Amino acid sequence: MLITLTTDFGYQDAFVGIMKGVILRINPEARIVDLTHGIRPQDILAGALTLRHAVGYFPCGTIHLAVVDPGVGSARRPLLVESAGSYFIGPDNGIFSLIPVNEDPTRIVELSNSEYHLKPTSSTFHGRDIFAPVAGHLSLGIEPQCFGSLRDSMMQITLPKIVRSAREIVGEIVYVDGYGNLFTNIVERDLTVLPRDELTIACGPVTIRGLTKSYASARAGDYVALINSWGMLEIALRNGSAQRAVGLSVGDQLKLTWG
Amino acid sequence: MLITLTTDFGYQDAFVGIMKGVILRINPEARIVDLTHGIRPQDILAGALTLRHAVGYFPCGTIHLAVVDPGVGSARRPLLVESAGSYFIGPDNGIFSLIPVNEDPTRIVELSNSEYHLKPTSSTFHGRDIFAPVAGHLSLGIEPQCFGSLRDSMMQITLPKIVRSAREIVGEIVYVDGYGNLFTNIVERDLTVLPRDELTIACGPVTIRGLTKSYASARAGDYVALINSWGMLEIALRNGSAQRAVGLSVGDQLKLTWG
Amino acid sequence: MLITLTTDFGYQDAFVGIMKGVILRINPEARIVDLTHGIRPQDILAGALTLRHAVGYFPCGTIHLAVVDPGVGSARRPLLVESAGSYFIGPDNGIFSLIPVNEDPTRIVELSNSEYHLKPTSSTFHGRDIFAPVAGHLSLGIEPQCFGSLRDSMMQITLPKIVRSAREIVGEIVYVDGYGNLFTNIVERDLTVLPRDELTIACGPVTIRGLTKSYASARAGDYVALINSWGMLEIALRNGSAQRAVGLSVGDQLKLTWG
Repeated sequence: MLITLTTDFGYQDAFVGIMKGVILRINPEARIVDLTHGIRPQDILAGALTLRHAVGYFPCGTIHLAVVDPGVGSARRPLLVESAGSYFIGPDNGIFSLIPVNEDPTRIVELSNSEYHLKPTSSTFHGRDIFAPVAGHLSLGIEPQCFGSLRDSMMQITLPKIVRSAREIVGEIVYVDGYGNLFTNIVERDLTVLPRDELTIACGPVTIRGLTKSYASARAGDYVALINSWGMLEIALRNGSAQRAVGLSVGDQLKLTWG
Repeated sequence: MLITLTTDFGYQDAFVGIMKGVILRINPEARIVDLTHGIRPQDILAGALTLRHAVGYFPCGTIHLAVVDPGVGSARRPLLVESAGSYFIGPDNGIFSLIPVNEDPTRIVELSNSEYHLKPTSSTFHGRDIFAPVAGHLSLGIEPQCFGSLRDSMMQITLPKIVRSAREIVGEIVYVDGYGNLFTNIVERDLTVLPRDELTIACGPVTIRGLTKSYASARAGDYVALINSWGMLEIALRNGSAQRAVGLSVGDQLKLTWG
Repeated sequence: MLITLTTDFGYQDAFVGIMKGVILRINPEARIVDLTHGIRPQDILAGALTLRHAVGYFPCGTIHLAVVDPGVGSARRPLLVESAGSYFIGPDNGIFSLIPVNEDPTRIVELSNSEYHLKPTSSTFHGRDIFAPVAGHLSLGIEPQCFGSLRDSMMQITLPKIVRSAREIVGEIVYVDGYGNLFTNIVERDLTVLPRDELTIACGPVTIRGLTKSYASARAGDYVALINSWGMLEIALRNGSAQRAVGLSVGDQLKLTWG
């Protein structure tokens, strides 16, 4: 059984390695894949976007463990969520707001059964003490409802919405990747019927004319706008960091105009 | 058989990947887990603390390969250590000073049998040429004493000790994690019978009153003192880096007072 | 079957994790090892050097997937290369210029059979949409020629050559590792018959006398020149970054003199 890990723990310390030990002590046959541990500290939206765009590439039945958890030790609940054939384990803070769903009901279990938690259970590292052992036991075939009580809902965060009028779309930056490329909340279907070659994208001090298909179509030092591998409108600087060059980041707006 | 890797090699280069190739060429079935490769370069104490706090979460019989090795190519010996049901492979420089022990004797083998080393054996990368191949062969079931001669002792480094008097404890910072949280040599049992709510912690320019249980109990921008997931007194800055904010690092002192 | 991954994707995002999902959905038994994802963005030569020095440590038959791909979406072709018992998958941009060869012919297949690509196939992330699925299918035993048409040649980049005269060698820096050590294009066999103790290495503002065998033979703050674990002449600063201290980087020259 495959288990993926997504955290904001970074790569400096052994916290992620310790979680893997916990899983493997419970299920020595578990296969563990790092989705990323480079989520910006406490950036729940970045974690949610990462899960949204990654989950579909993994086999059905994969267990996705996600720990971006600024509320660890508070009243926020630990969850196991089953949706569209995948499992999600992590805190109830909105990180699962954007996961794929299908016609089957999404089942939400609060991890209230402490039988499956490490003892003593810390107030600072539920990744090790609650989420990893639950993932280990789930991968062994323990039924989801054994881990606690069913819940009707979980916390939701929402992507900011675009504002659309006759001749423009105002969107905003929702994710910045490791290259400094700016991912926006404007997605491919927002552009249906629009003349891609004639769009003007105003992004801070920079104005870009027309969408391109790939980074390679620009010259070094040029800005490009394209629909990226997550299906989002992205502003990139060929051979550089658009984030640094235009001085914008998550939450800043950009404007698309045409006609 | 599970093999963990702990190094200060970082993530930029292929050095760790090459070690994995060496192990898998010897034992294609070996399971390899990265504990961390983000140990601060040459920080043997950080490596020793990492092993101390991680080993207990791994299955019995796990092989822990640790390469923080500023003395590679010098007279420092390469070791295999068997202690409390786990195996440790790395340089004799103190990195195994803090590993778990039990009533069984700790067995120390100097890796003097070059039959199990890669040839030619470099003077600059024993991780690849000595430690990885020994780990691979050990994971295949080769007996520890086959790798070389028994030794009576290995190099020890010690954690600095706290200084305790009637109304205070003077401790020091021994580890700083990737968030900039300051881990100290004051541990949970040092605080037995002390009134946790009434402790005053003086840490550089900052004074903290009382211990909390979790990061979430503080407001953004507030400092907290808590017993962390490694059982150590930790100074943290909610939503920030305590290290940067207070300007202290490993070796700097802090003072706990009460009454 | 073992698959290694080498990219310049870094560790901040889930791009590498997504590629692993694609591979494991095709072949749940595939074993995946990260060689490194810290290649300097778009540094094809660094990727080529990494493969050259790593491949020999992996089992025969290993599949090496390498994505340093500034030309993704352009006319550059996607390739599968079989050479000396190993497989290489990645863009035709020179990244396979330095891979090991033997008396067997190197077989080059252009990945023109889109049956094995993800649909829709993006113009920005062939790692996910072309290279990962081909690696997954190849690891299941699909024959190389099934993935497309044979080609006679692939793009080549060359290491800069040393310039040798009676009493000197002029070389240059070709790789800088995560410690800031400077790797040069002067290799061990270039020094045959030279008096290693009497060489003078002029490297920017620094002059080093004689080669040493290990870092440990120098005092903290001293520079050393040695033949490193990749068989290259390396300039290092004991307990520091030679790159920062001497202010040189890839492409800068250094001079070896004797007599």
